[in-house]
Amino acid sequence: MKIVIIGGVAGGASAAARARRLSDDAEIIVLERGPHPSFANCGLPYYVGGEIQSRDKLLVAPIEMLRQRHRLDVRVHAEVIAIDRPAKQVTVRDLASDRQYTESYDKLIVSTGAAPFRPHIPGIDSDRVLELRDLNDADRMHTVATSGSRKAVIVGAGFIGIEVAENLRRRNIDVTIVELADQILPPWDHEMMIPIQDHVRENGVELCLQDSAIGFDETETGLNIRLQSGATIAADFAVVCIGVRPESKLAMDAGIACGPRGGIVTSERMQTNDPDIYAVGDVAEVMDFVTRQPVQIPLAGPANRQGRIAADHIFGRPSAYRGTQGTAIVGVFGKTAAMTGQSEKLLRRSETLYEKIYIHPTDHAGYYPGAEVMTLKLLFDPNTGHILGAQGVGTHGVDKRIDVIATAIQGGMTVFDLEEVELCYAPQYGHAKDAVNMAGFVASGVVRGDQTVVHATSDPSAPPVYVLDVRSESEFTAGHIPDATNIPIEVLRDRTDELPRDRKIIAYCKVGQRGYLATRVLMQRGFDVSNLSGGYLSWRRTAEASSTT
Amino acid sequence: MKIVIIGGVAGGASAAARARRLSDDAEIIVLERGPHPSFANCGLPYYVGGEIQSRDKLLVAPIEMLRQRHRLDVRVHAEVIAIDRPAKQVTVRDLASDRQYTESYDKLIVSTGAAPFRPHIPGIDSDRVLELRDLNDADRMHTVATSGSRKAVIVGAGFIGIEVAENLRRRNIDVTIVELADQILPPWDHEMMIPIQDHVRENGVELCLQDSAIGFDETETGLNIRLQSGATIAADFAVVCIGVRPESKLAMDAGIACGPRGGIVTSERMQTNDPDIYAVGDVAEVMDFVTRQPVQIPLAGPANRQGRIAADHIFGRPSAYRGTQGTAIVGVFGKTAAMTGQSEKLLRRSETLYEKIYIHPTDHAGYYPGAEVMTLKLLFDPNTGHILGAQGVGTHGVDKRIDVIATAIQGGMTVFDLEEVELCYAPQYGHAKDAVNMAGFVASGVVRGDQTVVHATSDPSAPPVYVLDVRSESEFTAGHIPDATNIPIEVLRDRTDELPRDRKIIAYCKVGQRGYLATRVLMQRGFDVSNLSGGYLSWRRTAEASSTT
Repeated sequence: MKIVIIGGVAGGASAAARARRLSDDAEIIVLERGPHPSFANCGLPYYVGGEIQSRDKLLVAPIEMLRQRHRLDVRVHAEVIAIDRPAKQVTVRDLASDRQYTESYDKLIVSTGAAPFRPHIPGIDSDRVLELRDLNDADRMHTVATSGSRKAVIVGAGFIGIEVAENLRRRNIDVTIVELADQILPPWDHEMMIPIQDHVRENGVELCLQDSAIGFDETETGLNIRLQSGATIAADFAVVCIGVRPESKLAMDAGIACGPRGGIVTSERMQTNDPDIYAVGDVAEVMDFVTRQPVQIPLAGPANRQGRIAADHIFGRPSAYRGTQGTAIVGVFGKTAAMTGQSEKLLRRSETLYEKIYIHPTDHAGYYPGAEVMTLKLLFDPNTGHILGAQGVGTHGVDKRIDVIATAIQGGMTVFDLEEVELCYAPQYGHAKDAVNMAGFVASGVVRGDQTVVHATSDPSAPPVYVLDVRSESEFTAGHIPDATNIPIEVLRDRTDELPRDRKIIAYCKVGQRGYLATRVLMQRGFDVSNLSGGYLSWRRTAEASSTT
Repeated sequence: MKIVIIGGVAGGASAAARARRLSDDAEIIVLERGPHPSFANCGLPYYVGGEIQSRDKLLVAPIEMLRQRHRLDVRVHAEVIAIDRPAKQVTVRDLASDRQYTESYDKLIVSTGAAPFRPHIPGIDSDRVLELRDLNDADRMHTVATSGSRKAVIVGAGFIGIEVAENLRRRNIDVTIVELADQILPPWDHEMMIPIQDHVRENGVELCLQDSAIGFDETETGLNIRLQSGATIAADFAVVCIGVRPESKLAMDAGIACGPRGGIVTSERMQTNDPDIYAVGDVAEVMDFVTRQPVQIPLAGPANRQGRIAADHIFGRPSAYRGTQGTAIVGVFGKTAAMTGQSEKLLRRSETLYEKIYIHPTDHAGYYPGAEVMTLKLLFDPNTGHILGAQGVGTHGVDKRIDVIATAIQGGMTVFDLEEVELCYAPQYGHAKDAVNMAGFVASGVVRGDQTVVHATSDPSAPPVYVLDVRSESEFTAGHIPDATNIPIEVLRDRTDELPRDRKIIAYCKVGQRGYLATRVLMQRGFDVSNLSGGYLSWRRTAEASSTT
């Protein structure tokens, strides 16, 4: 068996290592265009910022190790320029010698990844416009960031854009981010990013949302970045990170089928339309785990698993890829945003029936020092309770809750299961009723009809409702929803005659707990009442969202 | 509907709040013997140590809130002294006035908890022998710990014992722990506690394992604690925390069925043998989620869920308790030990077929600063791959991994599912192949027969094996298993003629990864070879365990 793998990072490296363990006889050739077969691409921004000090640390699998330990024929500076499917061979250009040669294969694994998208903007080819994909890019940015630069403009507020912003701030460089969307980190839902955007701004980053770069003009000392809005920002350099595109041209030229977003179409065995050719990682189109629709989601974890599965299948194993959930996390100046499964915006786009709830629990028991509030959003099927997705933002413990819910999604579990999961509890780690249980309680209550929830909205066509604030007088005075009436929960039962029986009532408190009790009290007295999910805290964010963008 | 709840903490409080939400008309009476209906018992040790500074913080649900917000008839200093089942009433003694009265019920919920076990040891009733169950106990210990005490002896190295030790050290008090077992924290398996015990000792706590207190003799200035081993320790005070016993006498006297450990026998609806009487929390015997056997596991999370389920059932809801998994966590001087499901010792005791694997991953990517090694142990059915239990010890991220595995157990998932779970990855949070995935890979490999694993043992009757160390020469020289032969993995394939074909070979490396590759290489060449799970790191702990206890 002779296996040729194009591209050594993540999926390619995993495929190679797995293939070697399954067959110590197989000839395994890894062809890597760059100088390193395997490096820590997720660490690049932190090397730029100095959090990772040593560049050597980024070389996670040195070439000698791959060669000696795994007996892989690893070739660097080896660019594959053609795939000849009838002849089952690839044409390789050795970039060091500029020599070309062919290499035959029994099985070919395409792991060419995805390249940063560079739109046709005047001046984008300037040396002062950087990107960040590989170690060369990181070296360049490291040099620029540590040699007197004072100001940078980042175009794109996705994962890389945010991570680069944080790390340039670490170097005391002023940063402006320009983002076409009305929010940073577009995979998350808009309202979840409100507190994160505030936090980014508090850390000295200027955000220009709903704007874009239309020109990069070199000046004597730097760069002027012209924006769609008419503004011009002077900076020492710019970083363009507005997403990636699958590097599938090589495969496409060989007649391998690709999807509408350019990703190579794969089976659950990671096979392409040519059964001897596999595609893994960011170049592959995969199934969404929740929707079973084809998607293009570039993530390191899935890439690794796909590589493993391709190797398994080559050696007759029945492994199958279950699809990508889109579990993702990003650190933002000490805060965390994490998500798994479908976002609300994706569910809307696909017209999927869903319901959602918000909670604002602390990461651990409030009576133990250091507890901080996080926000969790849970998306689920309102009929069956099946979990569709979850998002979390906060300071501590967000990764844990999203990992637990990601596991529940993987197991096909429901919001009723989240009520029951038995998680670690000691006061410094969580709650006897953990945040995940609480999300389960609230969502289950909605599915069971114990409460209906409504959500903050700025829809002016909403029918007139009676808004009932059940918090204390002092909380109400400090700030409330316009036109709300304050009847604290403690006296609500004695004052129900003040409430209308001919209008819908929306009850709310700070985070939704007292609002839930009020909803129960009033439902049992025959009122048409709903609880405002996530309470005043969620409402205020949505209100801010509508006013600030 | 008139509901009487005996005992207000955890299970009782949850039952009351849930019952109120389900029925705003119901009469709900909470009878609490102590002065507070609901306090944070898990926070008591941290109040003693000063980590929680304000005592008020421990009063999580003030009585006024329960009365006004939830309209509960909460009575403190109200001790129930008899249950009259035919008359459906309880006899209550008001401890403040010493008055007695009866209270009728439609449904009764017994949530009397569990009391610290106090064995008949001479002198145990001394004022200098403390325990820690309620706020009174915490107040006493707080006073003693902050008024010049220099030395304490803690009898019992369970959760409370370890937490009290940590907090007395915070007060600069010298601590000796006396524990009958050959390890601290007996719910965990012995070998998992080796690094934790070292850590406890490094933090200035002396451990006297396999020993017990046989007498407490008051002296002019303190206490002499006499041990079974013959030693006597002088101290200012002692703390006895050798486990708890269900406070079920009241129920037993009323003819309610109890199990062999004294817990009240309950159905999955939390009903006792009297359908109008429920039992929840530490006083109840419940099913083990994994084994489906009756168990007595005192945990706050399950107590809360049981209270909810009892209230649900009273109001005709079909909720059912799924059983207790035994998910538990404890902080130990900045390190963490967590577990879920069955331990190996329990599986042995019940003669359940199981296999296990150990891994030693870092909590996040090794190239990102601050990564620290944790140890995970996974127990599973070797035929089906069903997860039976997991344990983790380390500094960061242990709670997260055990929570994920606990969720997988709740969902009936297998080690194959752990391979596939898609978890949050960025270098400061985890790995592209997370620790949980790695545990899944290794365990799945065992179930699939890709490798057999062996475990460190001190069994002298084991047949002679050839022990193969595949680490580097320098690692080997720094320390290795006696009689092992060193052939680094990089040259193993060229030196297989040095290996025996008539003996079993055990391959090992530092943590098991190179050992796995070596196992694969040699299996494919026809050798009878197994991988030492967890590698030299696991072996050394077991070796230390046999030599130090």
